[in-house]
Amino acid sequence: MGRGSVRCCPNTFRRSGISSTCVMRKTKMEQSKKKKCLIRFEPSGLKVEVPAGTVLLEAARKAGVYLTSVCGGDGYCGKCKVIIDEGQFQSRPTTLLTQDELREDVVLACQTKVLSDVTVTVPKFHTLETSQILMDSDAHRFSELAGDVRAGLFEFDPLVRKINVEMSAPTVHDHTADHERLYLGIREQIDAPIMQTGFRILQNLPQVLQDSDYKVTVTIGRRGETTEVIEVEKGDHHAKNYAVAVDLGTTTVVAHLMDLTNATTIDTEATYNSQINFGEDYIRRIIYAEENNAFDEMQNRIVHDVNNLIVTLAARQKIDLQDITTVICAGNTAMAHFLLNLDPRRIRREPYIASASFVPPIRAAEAGIQINKRGLLYCLPGVAAYIGSDIVAGVLTTRIYTKKGISLFADIGTNGEVVLGNRDWLVCASSSAGPAFEGSGVKHGMRAGAGAIEKLTIHGDGSVEYKTIGETHPVGICGSGLLDTLAGLFTNGIIDRNGQFQANGQSGVTEGEEGMQFRLVPAENGHHEVVITQADIDNLVRSKAGVFAAIRVLMDSTQTKLEDIETIYLAGGFGNFLNVRQAVTIGMLPDLEAEKIQFVGNTSIAGAKTVLLSREALRTAEQIATSMTYFDLMSHTGYMEEFVRASFLPHTDLSLFPSVKSTQEHKSTRA
Amino acid sequence: MGRGSVRCCPNTFRRSGISSTCVMRKTKMEQSKKKKCLIRFEPSGLKVEVPAGTVLLEAARKAGVYLTSVCGGDGYCGKCKVIIDEGQFQSRPTTLLTQDELREDVVLACQTKVLSDVTVTVPKFHTLETSQILMDSDAHRFSELAGDVRAGLFEFDPLVRKINVEMSAPTVHDHTADHERLYLGIREQIDAPIMQTGFRILQNLPQVLQDSDYKVTVTIGRRGETTEVIEVEKGDHHAKNYAVAVDLGTTTVVAHLMDLTNATTIDTEATYNSQINFGEDYIRRIIYAEENNAFDEMQNRIVHDVNNLIVTLAARQKIDLQDITTVICAGNTAMAHFLLNLDPRRIRREPYIASASFVPPIRAAEAGIQINKRGLLYCLPGVAAYIGSDIVAGVLTTRIYTKKGISLFADIGTNGEVVLGNRDWLVCASSSAGPAFEGSGVKHGMRAGAGAIEKLTIHGDGSVEYKTIGETHPVGICGSGLLDTLAGLFTNGIIDRNGQFQANGQSGVTEGEEGMQFRLVPAENGHHEVVITQADIDNLVRSKAGVFAAIRVLMDSTQTKLEDIETIYLAGGFGNFLNVRQAVTIGMLPDLEAEKIQFVGNTSIAGAKTVLLSREALRTAEQIATSMTYFDLMSHTGYMEEFVRASFLPHTDLSLFPSVKSTQEHKSTRA
Repeated sequence: MGRGSVRCCPNTFRRSGISSTCVMRKTKMEQSKKKKCLIRFEPSGLKVEVPAGTVLLEAARKAGVYLTSVCGGDGYCGKCKVIIDEGQFQSRPTTLLTQDELREDVVLACQTKVLSDVTVTVPKFHTLETSQILMDSDAHRFSELAGDVRAGLFEFDPLVRKINVEMSAPTVHDHTADHERLYLGIREQIDAPIMQTGFRILQNLPQVLQDSDYKVTVTIGRRGETTEVIEVEKGDHHAKNYAVAVDLGTTTVVAHLMDLTNATTIDTEATYNSQINFGEDYIRRIIYAEENNAFDEMQNRIVHDVNNLIVTLAARQKIDLQDITTVICAGNTAMAHFLLNLDPRRIRREPYIASASFVPPIRAAEAGIQINKRGLLYCLPGVAAYIGSDIVAGVLTTRIYTKKGISLFADIGTNGEVVLGNRDWLVCASSSAGPAFEGSGVKHGMRAGAGAIEKLTIHGDGSVEYKTIGETHPVGICGSGLLDTLAGLFTNGIIDRNGQFQANGQSGVTEGEEGMQFRLVPAENGHHEVVITQADIDNLVRSKAGVFAAIRVLMDSTQTKLEDIETIYLAGGFGNFLNVRQAVTIGMLPDLEAEKIQFVGNTSIAGAKTVLLSREALRTAEQIATSMTYFDLMSHTGYMEEFVRASFLPHTDLSLFPSVKSTQEHKSTRA
Repeated sequence: MGRGSVRCCPNTFRRSGISSTCVMRKTKMEQSKKKKCLIRFEPSGLKVEVPAGTVLLEAARKAGVYLTSVCGGDGYCGKCKVIIDEGQFQSRPTTLLTQDELREDVVLACQTKVLSDVTVTVPKFHTLETSQILMDSDAHRFSELAGDVRAGLFEFDPLVRKINVEMSAPTVHDHTADHERLYLGIREQIDAPIMQTGFRILQNLPQVLQDSDYKVTVTIGRRGETTEVIEVEKGDHHAKNYAVAVDLGTTTVVAHLMDLTNATTIDTEATYNSQINFGEDYIRRIIYAEENNAFDEMQNRIVHDVNNLIVTLAARQKIDLQDITTVICAGNTAMAHFLLNLDPRRIRREPYIASASFVPPIRAAEAGIQINKRGLLYCLPGVAAYIGSDIVAGVLTTRIYTKKGISLFADIGTNGEVVLGNRDWLVCASSSAGPAFEGSGVKHGMRAGAGAIEKLTIHGDGSVEYKTIGETHPVGICGSGLLDTLAGLFTNGIIDRNGQFQANGQSGVTEGEEGMQFRLVPAENGHHEVVITQADIDNLVRSKAGVFAAIRVLMDSTQTKLEDIETIYLAGGFGNFLNVRQAVTIGMLPDLEAEKIQFVGNTSIAGAKTVLLSREALRTAEQIATSMTYFDLMSHTGYMEEFVRASFLPHTDLSLFPSVKSTQEHKSTRA
């Protein structure tokens, strides 16, 4: 990594297992137990002072440096890798680092205590820029999905508006009081049969009206059927009304800055969810919060992330935070609970319930979100503990609730949420098969960021072609690359229908440290190799089986046949180079023609934006959330059977995958 | 008064006018400029420490002792009389104290500075017990007027309710989130299409539901068409739901404690409005607040009064303040503005407008009212700066808005507000003729309290029969007594139609210090005499002329003839022994048969109670307030002419008062 620091501790010593600890000596040698240590993180330059003995993962949290951590600090996921450039530290031995990594002074942050001032390099795969790419691509590629309002599908009627109200001043012939005069002025312009005014606004109103000669800008927000006067300002400021739509992802938080006067997206920004340090999936974060009574901390994290995004967008666009009147969020149920500090504990406990699926609009400041101090925070409605508002947003965005024919919507992330239905009915379920397709639980799995293989072809001779995000040297594999890998290994017979490597000595299959593996990219020029292991494949198969089993349960429950499904919409973090056909090949999605399967990107934020811009869309989202029938797979007797049947490539029942069957037969014949 | 203090300063010295100040020496003689003085008020025993030189009226304010003061401290009303028992003070000379009073060490509190520790006796006419009597009588006499709800005229549907909600706990087959489960439970019992929940309530909800096994008491409040979940408590407490209805009078604040579960009045209490020290009428208080930037202080006063009443009622009835969920107020527009600290300044300035006539429900705590911390404060809607919610309450209570025939409603207090109308139309106006009938501006005028002459007959020989409140020796005359006096003087020819004492040497008419006067009660046994002076009569005639002129303007504007009026309802502080016939005799009210004139007491609090108990009544009150057409008499060209015409007894145009005319003619004939 060429930072020229002195590295003196032989890696073999750390790997030996002889002692349980290893004291690394860098530039300073003195013993340090109680003293304060300054920890500097590169390349961000963020610093934090912590007591000697502090675990590096904890120091990173305090510094606001985001480190990936699937296991939440238990030392078994091996994701929180950082490089020690300088300083003393103490690391517990682990089998999760390769010899190469040990040579490069890579450590697991959760297993390393600092003993002196330390400088740490955070590898790129932890950093923000990676998701930036995906988010930007999304914004361009799927901009039309946010255009429901602009396309006239919903009436343009933002949840919060600023209107210029010019009233005539009172006279001896017109004694109407200020408050009622204002209401009359508002009602001349908008439909607002039920209105509310906060007490402080009411108290200030007379002065504002007199100072302005009864020419004011009124900010009005909709709370259900009630219209609230949020602010009354002197003069005409109605052209400055901005909002931020947020997709509260478990991994990534994406924010779009909107101009509410003309329904345009001005700018976009994303960041990693800084709760990641407490666990990569939200179940683990709930456990962490319970065990450490860290619900407040969990809220602070996500609120901090949202605030950072808002401030970044506002600063870049030179917009006053006071002119941001609205924040709207979509996300899974757990994230919504964390954001609002609503008790999330029963999400992970039978009978698996949410504290609230419909969260009323609140003052954004009440949740700690720093926009206009009386601005509103809206959360899209969800359905259940495992079907959040992101899924409702997906249904809204794909418009499957308007169609005569049956559609399938699937969001493959940490969970695989699926919705089946049409304009008459909607059913949904969530499979908890794990986040393998997000790169978690996969040796070289990673998020769709710089250096991630996002497209990959395995040829018959075992040679591999690939494309990485950012066109850099490959660092790992993201979701779409993993899908291609699994499909490639299967279609080329490198793994069998059980997902097991064939013992026939195919090219590229080697015996690695953890058993059989397939080398996708060889080590070269100091870059490590990229492989896929048997354990990785098992994880990926479990994930895809979970999704398909969930789809089968919904199809069976509604007596929907394969040919009844007109379109499959695939949402989520698969990235831009998803080969939807491969999703059929491995048996994740039903066997439909490729042209009937659409990758629709981040429908969560698209739906949030649509609702932000139209009360009618919010009402529609509420109707969708209310009308969706939720199947709890954990208590569903048929689910486990379907899961077992789906734990083959593509499935135990090949008749469900006629196109795959014919390819396989074709190959068999050819062979 | 028998308190045995040393009184050494000759009164003549104070009255001489030789020096502008008079140093009284009591038990202590040392000079005192900067030192602190302890002021003790008897009989309450309330104390306050103030710097030497503090004006006694100000010291009384600080001590929470209520002293009447019409002029607000300018030294010309002569109402803030107190007796110095002990201590040094400095008093400016005044002509407003009699020789007897000077002998008894009576001073005007606003014209007296304290120079040492001082003990002061506050005469009874300042004290609370007086209004207690009237308020209690009212409560009994007019209880049926608060019974609109109990009588079934309005549906029983209190603005704030507690309901016992027992939900089934979530199961694997019923995943409904806590928040939605609660809404379903509420909606099983009440009609609440539009609901809101505060963020803190929502955050606490999961714990409360789990702790209670989903059996809770929900407090719900109505904010217009929106139903708010105010509180959710473990267990069943629905039987403990109390409210306080308040009549915010300029002089007296009356509170009724209500049980919202069964629509009964549990207890009543009243106090003087402690703003009285800042001026007896609200215009003067607005001026005081403006000049001294004392709007906060003005709010604190009235809020303190309301809180005192609430605490007194709750303590007496052993009710927890947390179980009082609602406060509802009716009162004139200025009082409502003071209570909420809404800018009242334009009430007294052309074009005379209110900051708000319709005040939305607010959290009572926001105004400083100490009930359940999330309890609601409702204010009945008003019409204009000079037609407050007390008048709307009067229309609601008398039900003139439901009648085919035309009714006249008049509330004679500091202002004389009049409403004319029927089920099709309502017009209203307010005459600012002054509070003479409340005893202000009348030498021996006083409030309807202990010792007040409330009924009086003057016989042909000039002898007088009277009845005092509390059957005590007469101290002064209250409104009904003043009405009787004016009518008696007129019908007996002691004053002429111009209201002037006749110069024919009638019995009882004497030359007093301030000109001609009539002695109602002679001085005896140490009690001072009670007289009515020419100036008093002039004030009373102006007051009645203002009221009648207002009525004439409304009648003319609506082409209502005398015979069209079916009933006159007379509300306000006239007390229990009002002879309504006398109000016709002097030309205050139109010449209707006595049986068509009803005294209806405190319709302000009666209306507040009705609204408290029925959302339907609130909607009706809002409709009344909206539909009433307000006539601004100050900009009305015909009003002054009517006022001049009405400034005779009974009127310049005797044909308007046929019954009075015939009596007069009969007497003339007899004479």
